[in-house]
Amino acid sequence: MKDKMVMNRTLYIPGPSEVEHETLLELSKPVIAHYGPEWHKLYNETCELAKKIFNTKEYVTLLPLPGSVCIEMSAFNLIEKEGEKFVAVTNGFFGDSLVEILSAHGANVLKVESEWGKQVDIVCLEKVLDENPDAKAVYLVHNETSTGVLNNLKEVAKAVKERDKIFVVDAISSFGGIELDFDRLGIDFAVGYASKCLSGINGVCPVAISRRFIEEVRGRRVPVKSHYFNLLKYMRLSEEWAKIGHPHPTSMPTSVVRAFNYVAKKAVEEGLEKRYRRHYEIAKAYRQALRALGLSILPKEEDSSPTVTTFIVPSPVNKKIASALYNEFGYMVSGGLGRLEETTLRIGHMGNTARPHFMLKLVSALENVLKKFNVIDGSLNVTEELNRIYEGVKNYADQP
Amino acid sequence: MKDKMVMNRTLYIPGPSEVEHETLLELSKPVIAHYGPEWHKLYNETCELAKKIFNTKEYVTLLPLPGSVCIEMSAFNLIEKEGEKFVAVTNGFFGDSLVEILSAHGANVLKVESEWGKQVDIVCLEKVLDENPDAKAVYLVHNETSTGVLNNLKEVAKAVKERDKIFVVDAISSFGGIELDFDRLGIDFAVGYASKCLSGINGVCPVAISRRFIEEVRGRRVPVKSHYFNLLKYMRLSEEWAKIGHPHPTSMPTSVVRAFNYVAKKAVEEGLEKRYRRHYEIAKAYRQALRALGLSILPKEEDSSPTVTTFIVPSPVNKKIASALYNEFGYMVSGGLGRLEETTLRIGHMGNTARPHFMLKLVSALENVLKKFNVIDGSLNVTEELNRIYEGVKNYADQP
Repeated sequence: MKDKMVMNRTLYIPGPSEVEHETLLELSKPVIAHYGPEWHKLYNETCELAKKIFNTKEYVTLLPLPGSVCIEMSAFNLIEKEGEKFVAVTNGFFGDSLVEILSAHGANVLKVESEWGKQVDIVCLEKVLDENPDAKAVYLVHNETSTGVLNNLKEVAKAVKERDKIFVVDAISSFGGIELDFDRLGIDFAVGYASKCLSGINGVCPVAISRRFIEEVRGRRVPVKSHYFNLLKYMRLSEEWAKIGHPHPTSMPTSVVRAFNYVAKKAVEEGLEKRYRRHYEIAKAYRQALRALGLSILPKEEDSSPTVTTFIVPSPVNKKIASALYNEFGYMVSGGLGRLEETTLRIGHMGNTARPHFMLKLVSALENVLKKFNVIDGSLNVTEELNRIYEGVKNYADQP
Repeated sequence: MKDKMVMNRTLYIPGPSEVEHETLLELSKPVIAHYGPEWHKLYNETCELAKKIFNTKEYVTLLPLPGSVCIEMSAFNLIEKEGEKFVAVTNGFFGDSLVEILSAHGANVLKVESEWGKQVDIVCLEKVLDENPDAKAVYLVHNETSTGVLNNLKEVAKAVKERDKIFVVDAISSFGGIELDFDRLGIDFAVGYASKCLSGINGVCPVAISRRFIEEVRGRRVPVKSHYFNLLKYMRLSEEWAKIGHPHPTSMPTSVVRAFNYVAKKAVEEGLEKRYRRHYEIAKAYRQALRALGLSILPKEEDSSPTVTTFIVPSPVNKKIASALYNEFGYMVSGGLGRLEETTLRIGHMGNTARPHFMLKLVSALENVLKKFNVIDGSLNVTEELNRIYEGVKNYADQP
């Protein structure tokens, strides 16, 4: 028999993020049914935790779907006839995906496009909204993982609400890692995630839906052309079946929800404010460290995301760096996405990996690899600088 | 601190079925990303295993969706305009759900209905098909878990194929427990499942799609009104992204797929013929044992399902029996579904619980509870009979 050791990998990618052992233990508890008192309790408690993270008193549910399909649920319910105007704000791969989803449903999509790597252009958005008073809704990605830009959600929300539009937010890579004030910002539909900033397990997404959104769907003259994605039917069945302990119209990945419950509870117990601060500070430290290595970050400092960093290393060295980190250190980082594929690399520092020791380990490995491929001068010594950065954030370490 | 012992539950329900510890250990391995070489290999290998169980050389994929939403994927792609004729064969709760799904998509649904508890009426189906030569497709539930009826799939398939219709089969509660000959029967779209007859984890469904189905979608004049559920787009993106090790257009619950891979491999290693025989014999033994206790099985013997048994106990005793089994023994059985809610109980014997010792344990507990509630005479002695039934199937025990 060959002596074969499997290297432990660490996920430094923008999701799934590195999962702690205790979450895996929750996941591996005996499976429970998707009905009955135990499940009913777990499900409701988990929705309540998700409400806290969304910062909402509105309707919250868990959808056993990929994140983009959860976003598509809003399109199923909002778009009633061919050619209705919808505004999609985009400055990256996932913003473009909103355009695709809306177009697939027959919307006339007004694309408010900003440069990849920059925040959304509010002036441009306001102009489009003012020129199209019949636009029904605005779609936005809160945190764009392709570019590492945190969008100016508050400003966008203000512009949208002043014009009384429905506001749909993809919060997939911000949920639990960046403040998301659903009620105060007047968001109508937001999709969160389990396996990014919460470091849970992929398989269910928390989704928050405002009364206003539900009223809008109630006002439709043409029923939604789907059985499952018809929100009114979904809510009616959920309610009816909840009475027999079955709070969702289909079967559910109960093990995945148990893991979600565990990580959501941990996030709330950590304190959301503290958690958001941790993500913010660790991200800043990452950027300082990468700059110390002579690398350029794609977005400018004030546009940068607290959960993912996109930095510039042109092809083919970027791919070699990612491979070396993966094969020699067991550290998985992501390649660039879409039009940034050839020129960037991406690091996720979300949930568990938004910790100082994870930062120190990855940046040290990166230093080694950058020197090997002559991207930086082999004699460059940044140890002192790295340690200084580490010292600045070491109070965000896990408590033992 | 209170001395609190959590009782181990055993899932004797028609899904999720009882999961073995080794599967939970697979589930609890460190999470991998939904791209990269490791995942690419795991994903492809899992699809190949699913192909073996479907018995097909056609296209097979894994959808991270609830089973009914996978069925709905076929409706998204087949129904092109309002009022197209679709035949839904129904003799139970899940058959009725096919009618609802098709209706939601605007189809003119021709409902071929048989009595709940009986197999599908082929004469009636043929009549409807012959009177409606413009019907596009036929939908059938292979194994109806609400009534415990295994439908006459071969006969239905013959009638459908002779008339050259598209054939969509819900194989959710049969996949891996009952023979399913996708290619030979000329099925065009079938949905399998992870957490029923395979005793895997809920969260991904294997789906088989024929070339003919794909051609039919290709021939549409109106594109499918969905981003994710547009089969042609789904297949195109899957193929393009597979080249960069990302064989699915969205993120995926990779841990759940790993557990699926494990149980699918085990099923193939057991030998599918042998596995189907095991389900068949254990189900028969269950029915014999229930009859020995004086209970009536809803379907007649030749219509009975090898994976779920529905037996008659009217309300409110049925609910008391289920509660006592759950609270005192830790055995979870299911109540009746839909119009059978007040008069039946249901036992799932699928995947792991299709074993003689599980049968013996549940039936013994049931004897105790039935006597307690005076459903059967307290002096009735069926021990000898039960042991005789157990002897008849004990060679289907797990190998240690």
